[in-house]
Amino acid sequence: MFEQEWMEKTKRIDEVIATYLKEEKGPQRTVIAAVNYSVKAGGKRLRPLFLVESNVFCGGEGINNPLVCAFSAALELIHTYSLVHDDLPAMDDDMYRRGNLTTHAKYGEAMGILAGDALLNGAFEIVGEALDRETDAGRLRAGAKALAILARKSGMYGMLGGQVVDVEKTGRPMKAHELDFVYQLKTGALLEAAMMIGAVLEGAREEKVGALEEVAAAVGMAFQIQDDILDVTSSEQVLGKSVHSDEKNHKTTYVTLYSMEQARAQVKQLSDRAKRILDNIDGDGEFLKALIEALVERKF
Amino acid sequence: MFEQEWMEKTKRIDEVIATYLKEEKGPQRTVIAAVNYSVKAGGKRLRPLFLVESNVFCGGEGINNPLVCAFSAALELIHTYSLVHDDLPAMDDDMYRRGNLTTHAKYGEAMGILAGDALLNGAFEIVGEALDRETDAGRLRAGAKALAILARKSGMYGMLGGQVVDVEKTGRPMKAHELDFVYQLKTGALLEAAMMIGAVLEGAREEKVGALEEVAAAVGMAFQIQDDILDVTSSEQVLGKSVHSDEKNHKTTYVTLYSMEQARAQVKQLSDRAKRILDNIDGDGEFLKALIEALVERKF
Repeated sequence: MFEQEWMEKTKRIDEVIATYLKEEKGPQRTVIAAVNYSVKAGGKRLRPLFLVESNVFCGGEGINNPLVCAFSAALELIHTYSLVHDDLPAMDDDMYRRGNLTTHAKYGEAMGILAGDALLNGAFEIVGEALDRETDAGRLRAGAKALAILARKSGMYGMLGGQVVDVEKTGRPMKAHELDFVYQLKTGALLEAAMMIGAVLEGAREEKVGALEEVAAAVGMAFQIQDDILDVTSSEQVLGKSVHSDEKNHKTTYVTLYSMEQARAQVKQLSDRAKRILDNIDGDGEFLKALIEALVERKF
Repeated sequence: MFEQEWMEKTKRIDEVIATYLKEEKGPQRTVIAAVNYSVKAGGKRLRPLFLVESNVFCGGEGINNPLVCAFSAALELIHTYSLVHDDLPAMDDDMYRRGNLTTHAKYGEAMGILAGDALLNGAFEIVGEALDRETDAGRLRAGAKALAILARKSGMYGMLGGQVVDVEKTGRPMKAHELDFVYQLKTGALLEAAMMIGAVLEGAREEKVGALEEVAAAVGMAFQIQDDILDVTSSEQVLGKSVHSDEKNHKTTYVTLYSMEQARAQVKQLSDRAKRILDNIDGDGEFLKALIEALVERKF
């Protein structure tokens, strides 16, 4: 039941995102192709999903609101750009992601940089166009607030800040507070943006937006720790990517810093916390709670 | 007189830009330092200057309007990010710019990529914050239009599109229409954004915005052709950067495609065209016209 619903919602989000992709023509068609390739490489579309569901949770129309669609696609483009740039030779130097060639491996390094730039810029093109088209003054005001959140959570004080520290600490052991900083920003910040924007676009009050930000922060952290656990316990076949890579790369993770048992307890505690906060907010949180459970209990 | 005025205006714009720079502290301080270094490396601040002056030309308050300040700084950050990424080893591989180490040469390649990302993202943080703070509904609406222009002119159908073709054609001769495409987008697009945004923020009508877009397009093209001419005729001492670099790199330029004489005639024609359009629009265009003349007749 839930799995079916999840699949259908993801499919609808995929359709929404596809409407924002450009035709691969004109002198700049290579970068358009590289952008489309990067976006179509797939993934769980979690950030758009959380944005849409947070909006619905707050009483909004979800993907029937053009601004919800625009911000969802923008968020996915920003997530995608971060992966494309992370994979570059000067960063993680990865040739494959989810079994496919990474963008720079397929299109060359220069085009990998430019495709990432085009994705990040493209996110704000989508939002700019949607805001410019919005005729309702109240919605425009909410959209401006959502833009501020999107940009802040993506930047130096959000996702990018986490990436910076992650890059600087590569090959060196991290302290607990440094690892928390990286996880909170690198994974958490865009999930926070998703749930906050979903709420803000429905005109939710600051308190509610703050509570949903906390939910997202807990989910992001739990998701990341679960990633650390799966890297140790899963198999390449189930996970769809190489396992034991953290150990090989001497990476500090929740499992190396604490113990497997403590890491598992932490995931449980964070997901319980997220669900408890949701229970205290008005709204039908059944799907969101099931989604959070599915994510933190995932085997893949 | 004019030189003095120009210098003072540039100084005020530098002060405006400085207000948007962040303190170099926190775990992500390296990227903040790299961003600040890149922005402070200087330059003529032409894009902010054209934005402010276009706004004043349309009857606006210039840098006394917070949205004008925000968009001016954003535009300079976008210009700066494009230089930082252009200088990367996978692109032009430049170690120096204006006599200083380029960002990646000073901070490493990974941080060069991330600083560029932070600059691009930061531009939209500045705009997002300013729009979120704007209390006047009409100004907010104008701001949304300006955001749409800024994002479009920076992206695949603007500056970035020109950069893509430039990268793909490196080391290969370009046809005239390809060179025009690169110049129009790589140099022209952000100047167009500047003059359009300046006008839009003052609520200028579509016709006027379009006319100023044409002025900027002509100025951008003239400026770029003048660059080609100076690369042949100037000395390293006067220009502050290496000359004859186009010849060494077998680059197609207006001088190689046409002749020196034709290139000079083209610059003259374009700058006359820009001034003629300005003369046909209501407003005091004296400073703008003097600025255009100074730029296309520059020796440096």
